[in-house]
Amino acid sequence: MSVVQMVKIVGLGAVALTLSVEWLGWLFCRLWPRKISRGPLKEVFFFPTEVACTEHLFTPNSPFPCPCPLPHNINTSFTRLLGHILSASSSLDLCVFAFTNLDLSRAVLALHTRGIPIRILTDMDYTLITGSQIGAIRRAGICVRCDSGAVHMHHKFAVVDGRRLITGSLNWTLTAIQSNKENILVTEEPDLVLPFITEFQRLWDVNDPARRHLPSIAEKPASLVL
Amino acid sequence: MSVVQMVKIVGLGAVALTLSVEWLGWLFCRLWPRKISRGPLKEVFFFPTEVACTEHLFTPNSPFPCPCPLPHNINTSFTRLLGHILSASSSLDLCVFAFTNLDLSRAVLALHTRGIPIRILTDMDYTLITGSQIGAIRRAGICVRCDSGAVHMHHKFAVVDGRRLITGSLNWTLTAIQSNKENILVTEEPDLVLPFITEFQRLWDVNDPARRHLPSIAEKPASLVL
Repeated sequence: MSVVQMVKIVGLGAVALTLSVEWLGWLFCRLWPRKISRGPLKEVFFFPTEVACTEHLFTPNSPFPCPCPLPHNINTSFTRLLGHILSASSSLDLCVFAFTNLDLSRAVLALHTRGIPIRILTDMDYTLITGSQIGAIRRAGICVRCDSGAVHMHHKFAVVDGRRLITGSLNWTLTAIQSNKENILVTEEPDLVLPFITEFQRLWDVNDPARRHLPSIAEKPASLVL
Repeated sequence: MSVVQMVKIVGLGAVALTLSVEWLGWLFCRLWPRKISRGPLKEVFFFPTEVACTEHLFTPNSPFPCPCPLPHNINTSFTRLLGHILSASSSLDLCVFAFTNLDLSRAVLALHTRGIPIRILTDMDYTLITGSQIGAIRRAGICVRCDSGAVHMHHKFAVVDGRRLITGSLNWTLTAIQSNKENILVTEEPDLVLPFITEFQRLWDVNDPARRHLPSIAEKPASLVL
């Protein structure tokens, strides 16, 4: 066999194998599209949610089933939201306008008991509404900062473990969860999560009580500007 | 050359080529990570936004620059949001709690003038607030449906051309845009967009005025249930 023939055969073989690998990949994707990882976590939940027992999320190892009259072991938008919050293993940063929901407050306190660092940013005016959980959370020793500007800190997002964003229209209130039409989007897509992490840190720094009474550079007399 | 030798050469050549293709792909991704498409559109904007002229977005071909005293040609969170709305070429579905912003109303009316089908779902109570644009939008002939339940239709999302989701904490009001701390997330990721499309259609159907006075199956006397 001549060198030219050998090169032809090698070339054809290589092309055939490459095409086969590509074709097999395509076929696999078509046959089992959901079994292939479709990138980072992406979920959407809508509210109002069904009212269901959430006890199993707080005491998963309890030997006794919860005796409450609510439906048990139902997967609702709210149990999935609670599950994401309770999944935190290294940090929880929460930036929420109104916080009155007792189950979500219990989840935050449970994470604190587990020693997970928690930072909460909220709107000063809305810490005063009936049923606000911010007082109880502060008394438990969790670090809370309030935006006390003349306008609203209207965000409703959380970042779990520095990588999972939970955001949407839903305030952490009972009315929002059980009555209103609301949405929550959960994602680990870095291009969406990182801007929220940066904005949280910016708002956290801006609302540091130790800095609140320091004049900003813009407020200083011109002669003091370096 | 024997057949065995030929098969060996063909096999080795194929493996070498396949590995080379994979390795070149990996190298390309490492050297130019940002030049590779990173999947569907993903953007996040925060508010409050700088106040800037938006005239160029409405009249891009105007031979005269806008004489208003605001900063011109500035890329702000709001101009980017407006740009996304004005980019609609086939449809706009809007589901928003409060709608008073004049620029956003102008954008919706501009799309309507271009003949783009628009559907707006809003909260009945909030159509009555000072400055609500819903009346003007209805008078222009745009189809609006109101959720008149005892609780709030608190969503704030839009779907542009059935593929681009705009969602977040931001109501379409001047206070939200120029004063509050707010967020907007824009994505074309199908796993995130499709649930919002489905939920919009569900709420649109539920709030069809023609169906409002028909008893649902659950409301019918038991004997009438089929």
